[in-house]
Amino acid sequence: VKVPPELLSFLKEQDRFFIATHINPEGDALGSSIALSLALEAMGKTTVVFDRDSVPEYYRFLPGHERVISSASELKIMDFNLALLDCNVPERAGIGGLHFRSALVIDHHETEKDFGDIKWIMPDAAATGMMVFYLIRELGMKITKEIAVNLYAALAIDTGTFRYANTSAEVLKVAAELMEAGANPAFVANNLYETWSEKRFRLFIMALNTLEIRERVAFTSVTRNMFRETATSAEDTENFSGFPRMIRDIRISAFFRETEKDEWKVSLRSKGDINVALIASDFGGGGHRNAAGCIIKAPLKTAHENLLRKIRESGSIPK
Amino acid sequence: VKVPPELLSFLKEQDRFFIATHINPEGDALGSSIALSLALEAMGKTTVVFDRDSVPEYYRFLPGHERVISSASELKIMDFNLALLDCNVPERAGIGGLHFRSALVIDHHETEKDFGDIKWIMPDAAATGMMVFYLIRELGMKITKEIAVNLYAALAIDTGTFRYANTSAEVLKVAAELMEAGANPAFVANNLYETWSEKRFRLFIMALNTLEIRERVAFTSVTRNMFRETATSAEDTENFSGFPRMIRDIRISAFFRETEKDEWKVSLRSKGDINVALIASDFGGGGHRNAAGCIIKAPLKTAHENLLRKIRESGSIPK
Repeated sequence: VKVPPELLSFLKEQDRFFIATHINPEGDALGSSIALSLALEAMGKTTVVFDRDSVPEYYRFLPGHERVISSASELKIMDFNLALLDCNVPERAGIGGLHFRSALVIDHHETEKDFGDIKWIMPDAAATGMMVFYLIRELGMKITKEIAVNLYAALAIDTGTFRYANTSAEVLKVAAELMEAGANPAFVANNLYETWSEKRFRLFIMALNTLEIRERVAFTSVTRNMFRETATSAEDTENFSGFPRMIRDIRISAFFRETEKDEWKVSLRSKGDINVALIASDFGGGGHRNAAGCIIKAPLKTAHENLLRKIRESGSIPK
Repeated sequence: VKVPPELLSFLKEQDRFFIATHINPEGDALGSSIALSLALEAMGKTTVVFDRDSVPEYYRFLPGHERVISSASELKIMDFNLALLDCNVPERAGIGGLHFRSALVIDHHETEKDFGDIKWIMPDAAATGMMVFYLIRELGMKITKEIAVNLYAALAIDTGTFRYANTSAEVLKVAAELMEAGANPAFVANNLYETWSEKRFRLFIMALNTLEIRERVAFTSVTRNMFRETATSAEDTENFSGFPRMIRDIRISAFFRETEKDEWKVSLRSKGDINVALIASDFGGGGHRNAAGCIIKAPLKTAHENLLRKIRESGSIPK
């Protein structure tokens, strides 16, 4: 991997960096931003790490997470160089209106936008954390334990701890180096996957009990009653839609969350080539090919039927 | 890692090997056995891979799985050298009564038994597959794609795809080498985690519905009745014991599978430092620190109480 030389010299020459990442941050956004901040500060630079949304509770195990700020109103922004990580337009970071001294972009998402004075975009990188790893090494800085944990978490979340198709031999080698620098895979995995509250798990069981399978589509749901019974809320259902994918014959998992009487927020997850973003858009929603969402207003049974009809019409599941 | 020289010379000198592994085989048992068989056959040896139980359906993605046989009645056993993998007494492989020419043992479980003419026991190895990887390399044989997939699956299953505390930098480096030799992490993960039959998933939901939490221990169970109702069997419960670990406050997950009236096969999974192998051994079982098993003969409620008492006595869960 070749880090652009102009990026390296820019980081060496400049003194103040405003590191920003996308709203609704996950492990790669946070881990790579915090790691870069730690490395630059070790070089004697001044850095700020900004996310418009605060760090979710389950990411507060990341060493240095407390340096992430959600308001920049007290800063003289014009004195800072923006370093935009894990996204490539400032609007994704909620800082569209701000004017920086200059802007650099480090990201692994494909882009057609032309933002940034120095851009390093690597769509093939499994995570922005991989890029920051190479960057820190090329800057000649030590991968400290704190940096290692942040980058390991970044790799772990974006590769599903080495289960997704973006897991390369290079990813595993970098993960091994991060372990040698002090990252603990079990610590990271426990924090990412084993921190559900008991009530969230009870709600999860309730949702599984609603499982219905029709024409290779798995339907599950959570009602407002279930939220009340378990003292949980909408955020506790994150990832619920992914579990029925465990069933071999399932092509689409459709999770229905009741928002009001006869109104359902539907999360769609698909396997392989099936494009659920297209199906969601038929209901005014959207998303990505394998993960999309929409709202359907109808009693549950009717909502199921409506969705199933659209799936049939899309022809995405062969008979 | 140092492979015992006497093991290497024995494998080079001898011609016929009866590779056997434990009953109820999982990915490490099967992957390491098939990989060793493939390597020895590439050296011109004759091998048999034996498991008293047949290969579970969801492990039939392992290349070479069709070489695993479940009956040895037509073989002249005395002509074969036994290679016992991923267990260290022949009884665990259901071949207690057979007499071989000689016996070697390759295993990462702790043992106090004295079986085998040549023994290589490495309790620190994350998987028997790690040991077989070193062995094949020391034998000077190529890690073919078929061998790589088997060993990758072995590592993946025994480290929870690199989430458990036994994941070392060395494990990740070997996994990277196996990828370079042709193993595909997403292929292995899909096969390991997204190929459940619908009836297995139904059984899983039934098991979750039995969840009881007492003193940071999660109890779940499956009865013979549930097997009948869902037309499933013991092999369908693999990994069930791992799921309650998702709950933050749980320290031990104890999954009870009814084998006969008032007899339960108990799978224990723990987090962090809690050694469930010690607790299992109090009931005549064994295993690893974070994954162990035993049999408890009692009605379910009593079995729960007996286990909970031993856990309390062990002092492993602070009040």
